[in-house]
Amino acid sequence: MSRTAADGVRVTPARLADGREIVYFDEDGAPPRVPEPDRRDLPPLSTASELRFDPLLREWVVIASHRQGRTHLPAADACPLCPSTADRATEVPAGDYDVVVFENRFPSLAADGGRVLDDVGEVERSRRPGTGRCEVVVFGPDHNASFADLTPRRVRTVLEAWTQRTRALSALPGTEQVYCFENRGPEIGVSLHHPHGQVYALPFVTPRTRDVLASARAHREETGGDLFEDVLAAERAGPRVVLENGHWTAFVPEAARWPVEVHLYPRRPVADLPDLGDAERDAFAELYADLLARLDRLFDLPLPYVAAWHQAPLHDAEARSLSRLRLEVFSVRRAPDRLKYLAGTESGMGVFVNDVAPETTARLLRKAGR
Amino acid sequence: MSRTAADGVRVTPARLADGREIVYFDEDGAPPRVPEPDRRDLPPLSTASELRFDPLLREWVVIASHRQGRTHLPAADACPLCPSTADRATEVPAGDYDVVVFENRFPSLAADGGRVLDDVGEVERSRRPGTGRCEVVVFGPDHNASFADLTPRRVRTVLEAWTQRTRALSALPGTEQVYCFENRGPEIGVSLHHPHGQVYALPFVTPRTRDVLASARAHREETGGDLFEDVLAAERAGPRVVLENGHWTAFVPEAARWPVEVHLYPRRPVADLPDLGDAERDAFAELYADLLARLDRLFDLPLPYVAAWHQAPLHDAEARSLSRLRLEVFSVRRAPDRLKYLAGTESGMGVFVNDVAPETTARLLRKAGR
Repeated sequence: MSRTAADGVRVTPARLADGREIVYFDEDGAPPRVPEPDRRDLPPLSTASELRFDPLLREWVVIASHRQGRTHLPAADACPLCPSTADRATEVPAGDYDVVVFENRFPSLAADGGRVLDDVGEVERSRRPGTGRCEVVVFGPDHNASFADLTPRRVRTVLEAWTQRTRALSALPGTEQVYCFENRGPEIGVSLHHPHGQVYALPFVTPRTRDVLASARAHREETGGDLFEDVLAAERAGPRVVLENGHWTAFVPEAARWPVEVHLYPRRPVADLPDLGDAERDAFAELYADLLARLDRLFDLPLPYVAAWHQAPLHDAEARSLSRLRLEVFSVRRAPDRLKYLAGTESGMGVFVNDVAPETTARLLRKAGR
Repeated sequence: MSRTAADGVRVTPARLADGREIVYFDEDGAPPRVPEPDRRDLPPLSTASELRFDPLLREWVVIASHRQGRTHLPAADACPLCPSTADRATEVPAGDYDVVVFENRFPSLAADGGRVLDDVGEVERSRRPGTGRCEVVVFGPDHNASFADLTPRRVRTVLEAWTQRTRALSALPGTEQVYCFENRGPEIGVSLHHPHGQVYALPFVTPRTRDVLASARAHREETGGDLFEDVLAAERAGPRVVLENGHWTAFVPEAARWPVEVHLYPRRPVADLPDLGDAERDAFAELYADLLARLDRLFDLPLPYVAAWHQAPLHDAEARSLSRLRLEVFSVRRAPDRLKYLAGTESGMGVFVNDVAPETTARLLRKAGR
């Protein structure tokens, strides 16, 4: 069943007891994997997810009322992301793994489309089943590690997993966009400590992507130029570059919304993760491992953050030609003892007030190198 | 100096020691106010606020790096919003008051426009001084009260203050929109416990307002109808109305983003608070006092919330004709022991996942009446 992906990573798919897919990513040199069976007796997945169209913002909202009971900050010895042992069967049947991906047991979006909550007869324009897929990407077997502890080699394998899952979910019927991200830290509501990220197959183009594409389109009409190319050129010439190598630039954007915010652009315009070449992947792993270590040194604390991969919509050629793959990393921490909250100005009106000058953050992150 | 506004509320303006404006709102029957002098020796206000244009979202972001040292959760006996006493001078020189409004000592936007952070020579398209005004509205002298404890009479006076300040700030040069709001609860980062709200005079139309107006414009083009009228009619006929009287309807919107979210629409289409009539103001006070009491009974806990008044932009006749005044109230609390966090899906991509069905919230709030 297993096959070898780029960079010698072996990909082995299997199934969990309730039919969910699990995929192991084993690094070069690991012996061929024979997937261990899931010994648990799990009930079938039941979701009741629905998309509702907000007419005021013309955006889809996901109503997923079956998720209220999901696992929340379990003790380390009850962690569902650790390798299974003889005594305890977790979400990962294997006794060891490098990186593993599986379908979320409490998904916001699922293949069965979810039931529509009310009995609305036919699906209205304002409601659709919550079709899609939510996967968990576990960054390694060590419960107490974090992404910032990973070697560039392991970061490379995580990138391989994100890329392979982007390809796989892109092929699912109904997927319009694939979103890979990591939420890190209880300060932003992470409910499992074990280092992990997520991948969503979305049945619509996200509001953020739609809005940025509108800007890229307007920029092209107004200037003839490419928005991301022009932003990247301006930032590379400016005072907010944090890190750079031959393939990637990490900078704090001029109009950063968050007290810590870093955008990582590949120098070559590509639409999504599968479009990256091997040299670009290697270069990303080096740069990102360095950046994450700096983030944790900023306040000498594990920095809570969101890391969001912006990938192009799948089925719109014009949108793809306007898009550029990038990773946006941002944090709610504005001081060792203070968080930034989204309240009336931000959540109410979309007006972000940033208490830290972007130039200051860039300078501190440059200084945080080793 | 004082004059009588609608509903017998007497309005008395004065100045604080550093020149900031303070305005007392005294209810009918109070003796004429002679403003007490501010006995403090305050340094002049110094702000370094700047607007930066985010080219990816075409939105202004406020960079206000002078605010990091602002007052944060002081003990009750150091509260700057309590009435002054012989022993302690606060932001409010008076020994008593009903409702009082003053310019924020740590404003995100200020009349002096703020300094532009970098020495950019001439102001670029991408940067502007942070011109505007931020005011604090104190809902009463009782440090331990909250808005939900206010009588309808006092709610009416707060509404009068919001209305009067909307008028006053609308007249300031450069104001494009006036935003009245309340953040309630440490769970969303409120840094002062004393019950208070805020008013912002904004030098741009907010991203949220711009986006909603685009929807209203598209809706008018597509259907010939008024977006808010049509939403209100649909919600009034549906299962999510919480409260209603002759002038206002409070409902949970069909595509609510937050576990608790209630929108309050006046039945008559008006653009902003000054456009409301006396009967509508009275009816609002009754309904809102009732709603807030229900919110606190939902989990038998003071519910953290944002209450956001959506008012029309000031200087765009077409936008005003498309707008409707409304109050949107929403909470991050999704269970007695759980909060909703905005992480990768929401903050990264604008995709809201709501774990509570809007119909459930509406039903629980209807049942929470007394």
